[in-house]
Amino acid sequence: MAKKLWGGRFREDINELVNQFNASIGFDKRLFRQDIRGSMAHCRMLASQGIIPEDDARAILQGLEEILNDLEQGKWPDIEEYEDIHGLVEKVLVDKIGPKAEMLHTARSRNDQVALDVRLFIRDGIGEICNLIRDMQKALVEQADANFGVILPGYTHLQRAQPVLLSHHLMAYYEMFKRDFDRFADSVKRVNVSPLGSAALAGTTFPINREMVAEELGFNGISSNSLDAVSDRDFVLEFQFNCAVIMMHLSRLSEELVLWSSQEFGFVAIADSYCTGSSIMPQKKNPDVPELVRGKTGRVYGNLMALLTTMKGLPLAYNKDMQEDKEGLFDTFDTVRICLQVMTGLFSSLEFNKEKMAGATSSGFLGATDLADFLVRKGLTFRKAHEVTGKMVLYAIDQGKELESLTLEEMQEFSPLIDEEVYGWLTPEGCIRRRNIAGGTGYDWVKQSIEQARKELGI
Amino acid sequence: MAKKLWGGRFREDINELVNQFNASIGFDKRLFRQDIRGSMAHCRMLASQGIIPEDDARAILQGLEEILNDLEQGKWPDIEEYEDIHGLVEKVLVDKIGPKAEMLHTARSRNDQVALDVRLFIRDGIGEICNLIRDMQKALVEQADANFGVILPGYTHLQRAQPVLLSHHLMAYYEMFKRDFDRFADSVKRVNVSPLGSAALAGTTFPINREMVAEELGFNGISSNSLDAVSDRDFVLEFQFNCAVIMMHLSRLSEELVLWSSQEFGFVAIADSYCTGSSIMPQKKNPDVPELVRGKTGRVYGNLMALLTTMKGLPLAYNKDMQEDKEGLFDTFDTVRICLQVMTGLFSSLEFNKEKMAGATSSGFLGATDLADFLVRKGLTFRKAHEVTGKMVLYAIDQGKELESLTLEEMQEFSPLIDEEVYGWLTPEGCIRRRNIAGGTGYDWVKQSIEQARKELGI
Amino acid sequence: MAKKLWGGRFREDINELVNQFNASIGFDKRLFRQDIRGSMAHCRMLASQGIIPEDDARAILQGLEEILNDLEQGKWPDIEEYEDIHGLVEKVLVDKIGPKAEMLHTARSRNDQVALDVRLFIRDGIGEICNLIRDMQKALVEQADANFGVILPGYTHLQRAQPVLLSHHLMAYYEMFKRDFDRFADSVKRVNVSPLGSAALAGTTFPINREMVAEELGFNGISSNSLDAVSDRDFVLEFQFNCAVIMMHLSRLSEELVLWSSQEFGFVAIADSYCTGSSIMPQKKNPDVPELVRGKTGRVYGNLMALLTTMKGLPLAYNKDMQEDKEGLFDTFDTVRICLQVMTGLFSSLEFNKEKMAGATSSGFLGATDLADFLVRKGLTFRKAHEVTGKMVLYAIDQGKELESLTLEEMQEFSPLIDEEVYGWLTPEGCIRRRNIAGGTGYDWVKQSIEQARKELGI
Amino acid sequence: MAKKLWGGRFREDINELVNQFNASIGFDKRLFRQDIRGSMAHCRMLASQGIIPEDDARAILQGLEEILNDLEQGKWPDIEEYEDIHGLVEKVLVDKIGPKAEMLHTARSRNDQVALDVRLFIRDGIGEICNLIRDMQKALVEQADANFGVILPGYTHLQRAQPVLLSHHLMAYYEMFKRDFDRFADSVKRVNVSPLGSAALAGTTFPINREMVAEELGFNGISSNSLDAVSDRDFVLEFQFNCAVIMMHLSRLSEELVLWSSQEFGFVAIADSYCTGSSIMPQKKNPDVPELVRGKTGRVYGNLMALLTTMKGLPLAYNKDMQEDKEGLFDTFDTVRICLQVMTGLFSSLEFNKEKMAGATSSGFLGATDLADFLVRKGLTFRKAHEVTGKMVLYAIDQGKELESLTLEEMQEFSPLIDEEVYGWLTPEGCIRRRNIAGGTGYDWVKQSIEQARKELGI
Repeated sequence: MAKKLWGGRFREDINELVNQFNASIGFDKRLFRQDIRGSMAHCRMLASQGIIPEDDARAILQGLEEILNDLEQGKWPDIEEYEDIHGLVEKVLVDKIGPKAEMLHTARSRNDQVALDVRLFIRDGIGEICNLIRDMQKALVEQADANFGVILPGYTHLQRAQPVLLSHHLMAYYEMFKRDFDRFADSVKRVNVSPLGSAALAGTTFPINREMVAEELGFNGISSNSLDAVSDRDFVLEFQFNCAVIMMHLSRLSEELVLWSSQEFGFVAIADSYCTGSSIMPQKKNPDVPELVRGKTGRVYGNLMALLTTMKGLPLAYNKDMQEDKEGLFDTFDTVRICLQVMTGLFSSLEFNKEKMAGATSSGFLGATDLADFLVRKGLTFRKAHEVTGKMVLYAIDQGKELESLTLEEMQEFSPLIDEEVYGWLTPEGCIRRRNIAGGTGYDWVKQSIEQARKELGI
Repeated sequence: MAKKLWGGRFREDINELVNQFNASIGFDKRLFRQDIRGSMAHCRMLASQGIIPEDDARAILQGLEEILNDLEQGKWPDIEEYEDIHGLVEKVLVDKIGPKAEMLHTARSRNDQVALDVRLFIRDGIGEICNLIRDMQKALVEQADANFGVILPGYTHLQRAQPVLLSHHLMAYYEMFKRDFDRFADSVKRVNVSPLGSAALAGTTFPINREMVAEELGFNGISSNSLDAVSDRDFVLEFQFNCAVIMMHLSRLSEELVLWSSQEFGFVAIADSYCTGSSIMPQKKNPDVPELVRGKTGRVYGNLMALLTTMKGLPLAYNKDMQEDKEGLFDTFDTVRICLQVMTGLFSSLEFNKEKMAGATSSGFLGATDLADFLVRKGLTFRKAHEVTGKMVLYAIDQGKELESLTLEEMQEFSPLIDEEVYGWLTPEGCIRRRNIAGGTGYDWVKQSIEQARKELGI
Repeated sequence: MAKKLWGGRFREDINELVNQFNASIGFDKRLFRQDIRGSMAHCRMLASQGIIPEDDARAILQGLEEILNDLEQGKWPDIEEYEDIHGLVEKVLVDKIGPKAEMLHTARSRNDQVALDVRLFIRDGIGEICNLIRDMQKALVEQADANFGVILPGYTHLQRAQPVLLSHHLMAYYEMFKRDFDRFADSVKRVNVSPLGSAALAGTTFPINREMVAEELGFNGISSNSLDAVSDRDFVLEFQFNCAVIMMHLSRLSEELVLWSSQEFGFVAIADSYCTGSSIMPQKKNPDVPELVRGKTGRVYGNLMALLTTMKGLPLAYNKDMQEDKEGLFDTFDTVRICLQVMTGLFSSLEFNKEKMAGATSSGFLGATDLADFLVRKGLTFRKAHEVTGKMVLYAIDQGKELESLTLEEMQEFSPLIDEEVYGWLTPEGCIRRRNIAGGTGYDWVKQSIEQARKELGI
Repeated sequence: MAKKLWGGRFREDINELVNQFNASIGFDKRLFRQDIRGSMAHCRMLASQGIIPEDDARAILQGLEEILNDLEQGKWPDIEEYEDIHGLVEKVLVDKIGPKAEMLHTARSRNDQVALDVRLFIRDGIGEICNLIRDMQKALVEQADANFGVILPGYTHLQRAQPVLLSHHLMAYYEMFKRDFDRFADSVKRVNVSPLGSAALAGTTFPINREMVAEELGFNGISSNSLDAVSDRDFVLEFQFNCAVIMMHLSRLSEELVLWSSQEFGFVAIADSYCTGSSIMPQKKNPDVPELVRGKTGRVYGNLMALLTTMKGLPLAYNKDMQEDKEGLFDTFDTVRICLQVMTGLFSSLEFNKEKMAGATSSGFLGATDLADFLVRKGLTFRKAHEVTGKMVLYAIDQGKELESLTLEEMQEFSPLIDEEVYGWLTPEGCIRRRNIAGGTGYDWVKQSIEQARKELGI
């Protein structure tokens, strides 16, 4: 085992099981880029401030560069020898350039170093996820555009409610992802703050220049309180939460894809290449992707709950409990990333079945609201019109007819105010056309939303 | 039971147990102000657009005004007669002004109406909580200022680490609450959007003016997609999450107050008026308030998890499941509100025990880091200096001494570089003074943070 | 405000807001029966052991009896005067019988008293829920029996998979609830243990008889460690978890009811009396009950998570945080109780649409697995048979036919092993009949399961 | 990529990203032993029932044996070629013994196969964890025995309450772990049920013998309903919950170890080999193990919440979402296992500081309850005695004295009933001795508890 970064004060070596239990190298190795990037900035600053000699700094930087290249190319030492990525890099550096490497940790602690690494990771991660959100939104807009004019039932309580444009339905998800994007964007200002220089918990005695490091690493600013800086994991929680909401949205979309690709709905066909079969039932073509996305919502919720639990009731400043922030973070990031990627791909492959949707729209009395609205125009209060229409629906059910199949005479039994004009109020297209208000499913508004979205996405 | 807002289509009355199960009036009655405010804006718009006659609108507005006053004064009808607050208000209005009241629901559904009510509630709630956060921050700043200069051990792993200013410690919480404030502020842009006009799910056939309503109600804009607008609860989730993070911060502060008011720490005395006793142990004075705040973290986390679970996998648009958004919301709001209030009060009442803190700072080798830093100045690499200091600590433990009690000769055994100057590096005040970098615990920086905070708070 | 049960040691009165914050009377009043029952048993024991005089005990018992009757009849004092139910009962008793009432708290603390009350509440609650589970199971069995022989598609991935008996499908839920029942039954042994006599945390100096109290209250035994007894909330957690699993099961059943009552499936009609309508769409009849049950799953999960969070990291013994165990407990109990009641009622009212189910079974190649099994009988390995059948399905899709509509010649193109007998393997009834193994959907096994269930339920 | 177990019906190959997304081989490879064990039992049964020829069965068994050995020895094929462990084993078997391997999947689906594998894994896992619980209990009992007689303050609200035996305190954890053990033991009856034979969802058409397979694999019985059997994950949830409660208990023990090893408490010293140091502060010796155990509570809670979420609202029968049951299960199992191991080791290494504990017991008025009890013996009601004692404590605080340092005259000012005997009621040893009731901290009872525990543990 490599020498620890501490130990002068200890009489006994660490117990082997404890070593394995405490070690974070198994997962924080993933932060090697961030860790080395941070060390290089720190080193340049130390030299620039005269805290370490210029030529030692050059040697350190050169060494770090080489280590970065090696690790990028998969040339790793035996990681079980090390406690964490910080120790690994420092030890390898010592092996490479000798004791002068030991200057690197001047004015720094692993407490501020790991906070730095995680902040850099999340900043990068937000960028990546925001791009994937954009891709998902593009897939939605393209399908909304390509299927413009297609009508399906809008549902509430999974009961057919009113006709809506498929494009309008798809654009609802566009809106959800837009909020997700905005939420991530807002969070950046809280992530992109440099904790370096907070050292263990109280700052350092060396005349460091925190702004210089922050600037080199692309931070917007520096943290204001060292105790807070080393014990703050709010930015991880916020990332976890924002990811949980994305997954919630994806779970809703997934639920609809599962429903729509059932034989009962039959609204959509997922491409073979996005489905799998059964080991026993030869006819099966299963919508595994949306099911799995929906199922993975659980783990992302769980990761959020895990970190909230871990952070509950911890006194200041750093506590070892906080080491638990990383595995859940990586898991959430990987999960959201692949879910967005795979759903975007799947979405582009969808083929919608317009006939099935049209068929579904033509039964279930979807024009009833418009009939009530029609009666309001004819002079009834809305509540009265609602009641009259309800009775007509009941009559139609008994007759085994749809509303538009009732004769004028039958209708007039319920209200003498009804005239021929009523039939124009009962077609799906009419229902759509009349809802041409802001946010509604009317043709013009939906068209305009798509165009607006194209502008936002630059497509 | 009062007549439902629906029923024309139904042959049987609702089962009594089902009625009780479905009814939301037991909790959504709390939204009566928001509901009536929304109805008044909706009514004015309907009249202004010529959808309902001006004088009917006047009667409706007059009636709503009276209902609002009645409800404000506690004059409520038997709420068990009603399904929800929307139905209650409409029915009472009909009783008051007759059938013309039934026009009010024109171009509106309970789906957009309840979304409106909850948005207004949360907007108000954010305002109230943000004020309470400010109050909490003020209490922190006042204590930080009043106790400036007091030194206590900074802890990591609950082990004494380095001396810090009590003010610095308190200001760490200032920073946490500042982020909480910012997170709420960011969320307002997603909350403060009017859903009204989305109707059931697809918009309405009436020529309404959504912007007019939005403006009257103080919204920043209107929702862009009706399906999304009636099925979006992101803004409730975001509120729940932001509250969960506040509670996490409060749980950390509470943990410290519980620790600090133990006989073992003895750092702080909570006023009698903020403690309670024991029914059996006459000597007890218990820190119930911070304990209960810490305990209540659970329920707020639980409310977040509850809504995430409820929303998982729901197809568009409105589903009855969403009715479950409100009780957890009210509970979280009430919990966070009273926790902030009571902690702010308690905080102002705290008396810190400087002697106990000073005593704790004087043992535990809190100057060890500075001794290592001193050795770096004398020419060792940091890693070497760390090792040498570790060995001196071990020696001091064996001798039953603190570092500053070692003689120069004893110290020089470990490194000949050590000279008299070293003693200046081992006093708590010296440790503080030397950390005068941005974010550090140095006197000047902490002073300046307090002043900066006063500016931010306007105190 | 009534005098507290403590206070001798305090110089200041409690702050009014703190009082309100700390008080649990607002919710623990619900435990009045348990609290008084416990006090009566405690009082009898104190007298029996000679710790308090017999005639004082009689007066106390008489007084408690009266208080119980008053509270049962809704005659409550102003509860805002009291801190908790224990204090309320003691104070009212003092008012009633004078200072001798103050003997009642001898050898007892609120710490063991509240543990007792909650244990009694949960023991009763488990009994009540287990009865409701039985009722739910009965409703399932009756429907399974009444609809014996009805066939619907069994689904995996919400894709039609193989024909199954509706009775078999319903009996799957019977099994789930049976496990729920068993889990509750197992938990009783951990709930039904008397903590009384543990006092504050260390036991008492009085010569009490714990077994006597335990026996009178129907406990199976007494707790073995006083520190554990006052700080154990495992039994609440276990109750919360068991309820969470019931809700998960109910959410699955609810999901199916929502699906099945959609126009697309049309498998079931929920009675009008179990549905509600829309304030705007006159034709709507919504499956609110299963939706709301599904939605309420969230709050029960949340309550579990809340208590797990609260208990995390609490040192021994009692901490005020634990007061947070009760509201979530009551909420979960009430939620599960009404969900079971309303679902049981709803279930009995269901009318299944056999034609729709039959229709759904006749398309989607549900006989494919049996065709593969048939080919195995003819000599293919299962994997080969699976592949051949898959190709036949693909061919049938292209031809727009079901498997049973293919001619023998068409079939033989795929395998010369196929003969006339194949058609017998493709009917839904044949598929059912051939699965007559233990646990399978075969007629005999399912019949037998229903009979077995009737025996278990005593119906 | 290896050929899938399905595909006849598909026109397009699976998309590469989808393949990676769907594949479970990356984690379910861990189930290889269970999978092969299950296949061997299944194969023997198929032959015994005459469903496949005896000599083919022999070849299959031989092949499986070899595969098991290879995999045990780390000789794995490139796992990225396979979808899951079931497919891997089947394909490798085909490579080994040719097409006759394809008979193995007769009368079986991956749906019942994976349910089997997970049940076997959990059954084994429960056994392993129960053993580790016993080890932990042994460590507690040994420390309780070795430190018998040592007194420390019992705490409520983290305030000193009454003197207790350290052994009593440690045995409280013994009780918690005993409940954990029992809860796992109870769960076995729900885990140890064979799902095999349920096939995809409806049972199989082959004349299998489910009991034979169940018996060979050591199950107590077979599942009663195939739809339930393939979609039941209750047993995973129950395992997750039981693990969450263990972690809660461990988090409480950890919290106490962190507190007790702080300089302020100083009650215990953790061995160097169970601690780690700081990269910057040379004097630090941190209790990382209990901190990390406490922190890991979060992930186990999170895994429970994840699966509850995933299972919410899933219709029957198998859905792909359920694949998400495994990673959280493995993570929880590994976490609980190592936490128990490392805490057991650490516990045995603890050295308690009796002087520190004694010192802490001698201040804080820990005898106050006994003083009140004394006054009850002298004739006061308990409530009155409590009040008098409270006032004496207040007086003592003002005098800067402990109760036992007050003169008899001073005491008699508060109650003339007090006599010399009182001093005997104020020593820690007296407080302990007088609490010699069942469950109390008295010497005899605690001694007896330790002996009882030794019997239960067989040590």
